[in-house]
Amino acid sequence: MSVRERLSQAAFELFAERGFDETTVDDITARAGTGRTTFFRAFGSKEEVVFPDHDSLLASVQARLDAAAPGGEAVALAEAARLVLLHYLAEGDLARTRYVLTRRVPALRAREIAGQRQYQRVFLAFARQWYGEGSRADLHAELLADAVVTAHNHVLRQWLRGRTDTPESDFDEAMAEVLRIFGSGSDSTAGIVVLRTGRDLDDVLPGLRRLLD
Amino acid sequence: MSVRERLSQAAFELFAERGFDETTVDDITARAGTGRTTFFRAFGSKEEVVFPDHDSLLASVQARLDAAAPGGEAVALAEAARLVLLHYLAEGDLARTRYVLTRRVPALRAREIAGQRQYQRVFLAFARQWYGEGSRADLHAELLADAVVTAHNHVLRQWLRGRTDTPESDFDEAMAEVLRIFGSGSDSTAGIVVLRTGRDLDDVLPGLRRLLD
Repeated sequence: MSVRERLSQAAFELFAERGFDETTVDDITARAGTGRTTFFRAFGSKEEVVFPDHDSLLASVQARLDAAAPGGEAVALAEAARLVLLHYLAEGDLARTRYVLTRRVPALRAREIAGQRQYQRVFLAFARQWYGEGSRADLHAELLADAVVTAHNHVLRQWLRGRTDTPESDFDEAMAEVLRIFGSGSDSTAGIVVLRTGRDLDDVLPGLRRLLD
Repeated sequence: MSVRERLSQAAFELFAERGFDETTVDDITARAGTGRTTFFRAFGSKEEVVFPDHDSLLASVQARLDAAAPGGEAVALAEAARLVLLHYLAEGDLARTRYVLTRRVPALRAREIAGQRQYQRVFLAFARQWYGEGSRADLHAELLADAVVTAHNHVLRQWLRGRTDTPESDFDEAMAEVLRIFGSGSDSTAGIVVLRTGRDLDDVLPGLRRLLD
């Protein structure tokens, strides 16, 4: 275990035992067996200990998006968001303890929201590049970036609250739903016909297919 | 002008002249010609002066949603969000000054985000009731509530930055786009046929209409 991980584990134990506000940096370093200087080389503040992997995770998300091939944007978005989910799942109890802490301590909640906005901005920049110029494209990019974050948070929260044992497949379904709702790209509606009918679809489909092919 | 409005106007003038942190409550009451007690009867804090109508606006949004008739949910959502936009448009320069302030002062930005989350929660509760039970319905409700807020903020921001002179019609278009993306309700796909074709749509549409009617 690295010094960073030892400090992080000691901090979470103490937050769970005494509460966040009641734990000092000195308490944490005493438990981890390090000095204050070591602590502040590893973390900027007591708040930062709660989100130790935020920066590296954000970088992984960015790297996955940067690696998107033309035509593979939707998959890249889903896989980038999936990296974040998998990270929390791998944390296990640590993620659950953080969830409880962020609900109780406003400073941590504020930092969590700021962190989420960073993901949102990374997804937004990617979606803007994908959808191209224009005010409608821009609105779509914003809606898509928000939807990806919302769908991720939705599944993560269900898992954190112990309401699902299948977060990975839940996530895949949720992300498929988002991509279905938004189509697979800005020009996905080219050549698509949408019509409403009161007739039985099985009756009309053969005729439709003949007409369109 | 009410005492509340006088205090609010004095505060915004001073924030613009000196900055938010550099303005004290005493400065504000001196400019408005009232005492400290009057100030704190009207507002809980200096931050609250920046969002004087938040509570009443949130109540109007809730009231519009509460008045939704069955089948009129989509219209109610759009009109409720429109109330918020119209409020900012009516504020004019005050809204623009607030926009500059919230970007500069983290405490105000945090309060603004908290306020937005209240709208989001109101829209979410409404969408949940509309879409009904089930985990997929719940995801949809979250996505829709977020999309309504995102579309509203998108248009408002364009207007605050002086990039559009037609915020109302922009808003109507953005909201129509959101409702189109999400369908007009959970069973909106009943009787809808979606097909992709490489043929010219003008050529095939008459035949399609004949087939489906």
